[in-house]
Amino acid sequence: MARINEHYLKLKAGYLFPEIGRRVRAFTEANPSAKVIRLGIGDVTLPLPPVVLDAFHAAVAELGDGRTFRGYGPEQGYDFLIDTLIEKAYAPLGVRLKRAEIFISDGSKCDTANVLDIFALDNRVAIGDPVYPVYNDTNVMIGRSGPAGGDRGGIVYMPCTEANGFFPDLPEGRVDIVYLCSPNNPTGTAAAAAQLEGWVDYALANDAVIFYDAAYEAFITEPGFPRSIYEVEGANRCAIEFRSFSKTAGFTGVRCGLTVVPENVAAKTPAGEAVPLNRLWNRRQTTKFNGVSYPVQKAAAAVYTDEGWRQTKANIDYYMGNAKVIRDGLSSAGLTVYGGVNAPYIWLKTPGGLSSWDFFDKLLTECHVVGTPGSGFGPSGEGFFRISAFGNRDSVAEAVDRIRRRLK
Amino acid sequence: MARINEHYLKLKAGYLFPEIGRRVRAFTEANPSAKVIRLGIGDVTLPLPPVVLDAFHAAVAELGDGRTFRGYGPEQGYDFLIDTLIEKAYAPLGVRLKRAEIFISDGSKCDTANVLDIFALDNRVAIGDPVYPVYNDTNVMIGRSGPAGGDRGGIVYMPCTEANGFFPDLPEGRVDIVYLCSPNNPTGTAAAAAQLEGWVDYALANDAVIFYDAAYEAFITEPGFPRSIYEVEGANRCAIEFRSFSKTAGFTGVRCGLTVVPENVAAKTPAGEAVPLNRLWNRRQTTKFNGVSYPVQKAAAAVYTDEGWRQTKANIDYYMGNAKVIRDGLSSAGLTVYGGVNAPYIWLKTPGGLSSWDFFDKLLTECHVVGTPGSGFGPSGEGFFRISAFGNRDSVAEAVDRIRRRLK
Repeated sequence: MARINEHYLKLKAGYLFPEIGRRVRAFTEANPSAKVIRLGIGDVTLPLPPVVLDAFHAAVAELGDGRTFRGYGPEQGYDFLIDTLIEKAYAPLGVRLKRAEIFISDGSKCDTANVLDIFALDNRVAIGDPVYPVYNDTNVMIGRSGPAGGDRGGIVYMPCTEANGFFPDLPEGRVDIVYLCSPNNPTGTAAAAAQLEGWVDYALANDAVIFYDAAYEAFITEPGFPRSIYEVEGANRCAIEFRSFSKTAGFTGVRCGLTVVPENVAAKTPAGEAVPLNRLWNRRQTTKFNGVSYPVQKAAAAVYTDEGWRQTKANIDYYMGNAKVIRDGLSSAGLTVYGGVNAPYIWLKTPGGLSSWDFFDKLLTECHVVGTPGSGFGPSGEGFFRISAFGNRDSVAEAVDRIRRRLK
Repeated sequence: MARINEHYLKLKAGYLFPEIGRRVRAFTEANPSAKVIRLGIGDVTLPLPPVVLDAFHAAVAELGDGRTFRGYGPEQGYDFLIDTLIEKAYAPLGVRLKRAEIFISDGSKCDTANVLDIFALDNRVAIGDPVYPVYNDTNVMIGRSGPAGGDRGGIVYMPCTEANGFFPDLPEGRVDIVYLCSPNNPTGTAAAAAQLEGWVDYALANDAVIFYDAAYEAFITEPGFPRSIYEVEGANRCAIEFRSFSKTAGFTGVRCGLTVVPENVAAKTPAGEAVPLNRLWNRRQTTKFNGVSYPVQKAAAAVYTDEGWRQTKANIDYYMGNAKVIRDGLSSAGLTVYGGVNAPYIWLKTPGGLSSWDFFDKLLTECHVVGTPGSGFGPSGEGFFRISAFGNRDSVAEAVDRIRRRLK
């Protein structure tokens, strides 16, 4: 008799976005003339930059010609893309990586989930609250949350609140693995160098490993906020970094990301022997993954050509222009807002102590604007609300104008 | 102190293809004028069919236009591709599937590995011998093989030999999960309907689940050999099927596959409650995967247009023409050969009782032809040798001619 992985039954149903959809549908059916503006979802809207598009087409054409056709590529990604990242994405930050330290994938979501494969189940894992739900759900799936009903087994939740600037404090007890996401989804705040230094020191002192999710690094506009954790001394001995082309270059539907596993990051066997994680991740990827589509890798490499980056950066600036419109508009309406300076998300404190969902309903019914309730990202998100800057400028401006004029 | 998944240390190093590479390099360095023909690797060589290429380009162009741009797609795949598969790949076999039963992925290697996520570790798993190494390695990685050094913990190996026509016999003891691969890599043999019926009956009687790897189904040329396990009555209550565009349509570098999880296939909780695997796989994919590149899915759908399939089938026929040249040529040279009729692999019995590696060296030094030692796929592959039909016809014919003239 085959048996299921019963830990899956401990997962809460995907509640947040289905519930948003349900409430929006109910509203639009009752108010068919209302023009609803959606600023809830974190998905890009601008088309691929022309240089990226050209490279994509050229690589597709190669696959149609017997002289240039390619079959299986390296599971770790092609050197042309890895070398581009080393030279164009990391070297300008003062970070020197080796080819063998970068692994190309079809996206950060997969990698932040799959990386758990190479660690023992009995590690104690620290996760922010509120947080990107994948970190928590993938730990629950493998049984780290303990018995059904409980949720504190091998997972430590770290509140990210106004009091700590939405960046987790060092834990009191020991943890073995910690997830950090900067710039942060959903709070829109980025970690300053000194904050990251504290965590790197902690990890080195405790032989812990940091999972650093930098999917939004391209949206940082201020100095003093590292784009890579490897800008921090010692991080190349304790951190795995995840990056993505999804938000940076509009690749949410194209699918490309990367994971950096420095050769000097290790974890231990039960006997206490240190084993390089690079070797384990390489074995994981070569055994369970077959590499990223060749044309996609060519398109990704074009992002970092001079003209490709100019075009890509223009799209990022457009979204960050939206963020400024939202942030400034809501502030001047008397609302308390965070984020939106180094990230494409604005984290709004609900007025009058409203719950996240009550504010959702109020915003929908009074302004016909859709956002995302902060409580959907974790208990410490209660009383907050996420507004996304990915969208059309006119719609964003119209939404902000409605909030200023109509929100009671 | 972070701890590794120590089961990874039980894995043998990837030995087969590196060792082949080492021996071929040593030979070519010692014999620089030798023209070595490589028939070892199972990778396609013909370019993408024109209709597929056109669809690929058209979809890339959509992503460059703000009016047609798409971001995140459904994690399960787009309906346009799922519906195409239902109508064009499955309905002609008399198999009726629902949309929710097909999951598009970036390849069968990932899916046959990832599917283990949704099952408890204490399932007893049966794997053929010789076999595609991923089945075994991914079970070792999660700890199913028992203590280091041992290799028979939760894994039962089923010899596939001349005596049983290279199709595994039903096991004496009970197993919970069984991997079947037909047409088979590496033996090149396909399972007949009656053979599959025996396994489906076994699975239904024992509440076992069949993992059916049909990556090579498009290469079946004879009647009586099912292209899908769902052609067998009752399989839709016990089998998960994996398919791929890799070999079918030359997508090894493009990356697209699919997994079918019928709604009526279930496994049990420790309390004995049946849980539909479709629900668990859907949760796994939506949480740990972000869908396949949109242009890739458009290219894949074009494979099944009328003209797309004509062109795709022409490529398959070309490879199977190679297989016939190899099979007939080696037979007439007095060698015993299997496979090559319903699969693009020829499984050759080494002459004179040579070991697989001794025959490898003999073929390389006497004929300058590279193949794959059968023992690399498992102990029961000893004394056999795999030759791939993916290649250029002239090279294939030349290789066969050399074997007939030069092999002592």
